[in-house]
Amino acid sequence: MRNKIYFQNYNYQEEEKKRLFNAIESELETIGYYHLPTQNIDEILEYSCSFDSSIENIVVLGIGGSSLGARAIYEFLKPIKKRTRKLYFFETTDPLNIQEILDKIEGEKSHFLVVSKSGTTVETISIFKYLYAIDSNSSNYTFITDKGSNLDKFANEIGSKCFYLPANLGGRFSVLSIVGLLPLSLCGVDIEALLKGAKQVKESFFNDGYLKETLLNKALFYAKYHTTYNINCLFAYSETLRYFSEWYVQLWGESLGKKQRHSAFHVGVTPIGLIGPKDQHSFLQLISEGTRDKSITFIKIDDFQNELTIPKVNLPYLESLDTLNGLTFHDLITMQSNSVIESLLAHGDIPIDEIIIKRVDESSIGQLIYYYELLTSLVGELIDVNSYDQPGVEAGKIILKNKLLQRLKND
Amino acid sequence: MRNKIYFQNYNYQEEEKKRLFNAIESELETIGYYHLPTQNIDEILEYSCSFDSSIENIVVLGIGGSSLGARAIYEFLKPIKKRTRKLYFFETTDPLNIQEILDKIEGEKSHFLVVSKSGTTVETISIFKYLYAIDSNSSNYTFITDKGSNLDKFANEIGSKCFYLPANLGGRFSVLSIVGLLPLSLCGVDIEALLKGAKQVKESFFNDGYLKETLLNKALFYAKYHTTYNINCLFAYSETLRYFSEWYVQLWGESLGKKQRHSAFHVGVTPIGLIGPKDQHSFLQLISEGTRDKSITFIKIDDFQNELTIPKVNLPYLESLDTLNGLTFHDLITMQSNSVIESLLAHGDIPIDEIIIKRVDESSIGQLIYYYELLTSLVGELIDVNSYDQPGVEAGKIILKNKLLQRLKND
Repeated sequence: MRNKIYFQNYNYQEEEKKRLFNAIESELETIGYYHLPTQNIDEILEYSCSFDSSIENIVVLGIGGSSLGARAIYEFLKPIKKRTRKLYFFETTDPLNIQEILDKIEGEKSHFLVVSKSGTTVETISIFKYLYAIDSNSSNYTFITDKGSNLDKFANEIGSKCFYLPANLGGRFSVLSIVGLLPLSLCGVDIEALLKGAKQVKESFFNDGYLKETLLNKALFYAKYHTTYNINCLFAYSETLRYFSEWYVQLWGESLGKKQRHSAFHVGVTPIGLIGPKDQHSFLQLISEGTRDKSITFIKIDDFQNELTIPKVNLPYLESLDTLNGLTFHDLITMQSNSVIESLLAHGDIPIDEIIIKRVDESSIGQLIYYYELLTSLVGELIDVNSYDQPGVEAGKIILKNKLLQRLKND
Repeated sequence: MRNKIYFQNYNYQEEEKKRLFNAIESELETIGYYHLPTQNIDEILEYSCSFDSSIENIVVLGIGGSSLGARAIYEFLKPIKKRTRKLYFFETTDPLNIQEILDKIEGEKSHFLVVSKSGTTVETISIFKYLYAIDSNSSNYTFITDKGSNLDKFANEIGSKCFYLPANLGGRFSVLSIVGLLPLSLCGVDIEALLKGAKQVKESFFNDGYLKETLLNKALFYAKYHTTYNINCLFAYSETLRYFSEWYVQLWGESLGKKQRHSAFHVGVTPIGLIGPKDQHSFLQLISEGTRDKSITFIKIDDFQNELTIPKVNLPYLESLDTLNGLTFHDLITMQSNSVIESLLAHGDIPIDEIIIKRVDESSIGQLIYYYELLTSLVGELIDVNSYDQPGVEAGKIILKNKLLQRLKND
């Protein structure tokens, strides 16, 4: 991957960068996600291979960090990848959506992956109860949870296979762990290549590669101007990155939206995922002429490996569009993103950068994931938040728990 | 629909409200969308009925305002509606996505709706050229464009049916016109009920109904605090509203992100679409503990008309979740949204309101659409922008045009 930065004044002092780098380096001891690219995946591959080919669907019961990452990678690769199995997600309590997925998998052989770090996620266990009442064959379920959780104990009780999340790993940083790797591997994704991509970025950053300088400068810019540019847009020119942008929204929003560690202030940069060229016809006007509160990262695919071409057809009255004739859609979408970037750079007051990934494959998405995880950690460190917790969602959970207890009492 | 507002100090003076109301009332003469709920739809229904039942797919070639609205309604109704035909959208130049849709419709009988207000939308005409080179039977295409556009002339030349957008109607306000009504009607949506819902909201606002007061106060609040709360989130508790939120993002962003009419300042409020409960596990932390830069509108469905129930299953070690037993998913998702709202209101410094629609049907989505169109017009008037143009996207189009011309020269 390449990363071109067009910000003004973004070369920070060596001392600032060194302090930041050291802070992140010291997290290597305590934060689990940094080490995922070099984990041993033999057990996952072996378990994966043990699955009978009669199993047509892998169905994940999980929400947030337990589903977004696997979904991002699966959907990214879908157009180019021969899938061995289809992947479905139960990730809401919306009855209409649950019904829709139930209808889709009915009559086909499915294996269910129940993913909950805590083991007591309301959405996940609700749906598990529903499915388990219909099919209580424990060999049709695999569980992924923290070691020692009540879900772990339950899985052991019924005799289902249970995998554990590595230590010190939060849900939104878990895509490259068993949480993402198992469902993806079962659906034919090359998880070794995925981790290799992530490893390249890791090494480039930690071993003085070119991403070190880039990431440090970019994070310093984002942090320094986080009240001016309180919105960060990821503008990806490919539909394949639609779910990656949802993963990024969780990663960025939930990691950086916090009270500061050493103050009573609320901080955070709001993430927005955009897809080009569609959002040229939706959101671009706001970027171009609206309040100057956004930084934008464009993501482009260097080679779509697809030769679909606009035919040389001349249409009466539409001659002005004959300039499109003979152009590949790949070249067109690239010209479109370049034109938009050029038009926005002309304003001179919108911080823009560009990430170019090679192609739609496992290695590229592995790189992108690790790049964004690192960037999140760096910005979090600078704006003085704990990037790895989410205390702000507890209050709602407690209220719900009380409502549920109250309901039992009223019965 | 109902709308509960929890803002502090949001009752504005009668004079301010009167001035605002009069400004919008005077737009009735010049802005086309206000009158769509009472249009005559006989021709659309008749044309729709003339379609043979052998046509299985309706395929829209359109982008932005030419596709988002129809898609929002189609996807909203999908889980409850027996579809007469499937609806597809070509709305990008991403070759992988185009290939995916081509594969899906291959071998089935499709009718293509080519929708472009200007008639020269690059994305739409590119794909049209591709399809037309394969199938040049003009009876398989219907065109929707501005009267007198080059696309209109082309359609006449080849003898295809062509419909026109009403006067003074921008793309993002066009969902309740032929642009949305034709594809929806062809797929079995009750477009009469849809317009009836919109008409209820129109009458409530213009004829002193309860929405008049609510909308005026809400718009005044959003406008007054638009630099403090420069982000507006729509947090819908149902997957059915996923594409409605994309429609809202275009409407809000493209209408309100502008240079002011009477100053050189950039203004705008950034729209974000969220879906609960999924985004409780993604974005909620940022709302709850991040910078206080967001206003939030929750959308709830009063009756999902679905009895899917969590069975009374007791699981060893997971007894704490027995409180869920016997609960319908409908009741659970409602308890979840109420818990989140309660937890956020407790902060006291996040502007929250709640819209409750009756059920998943045409009338409800018609109401919601017209409500948001009105709100957009009101806020636009107050922050002194022209809500109905999009000058900021032209520069990129010109650059692209020049790149395309340059390419021809180089050939």
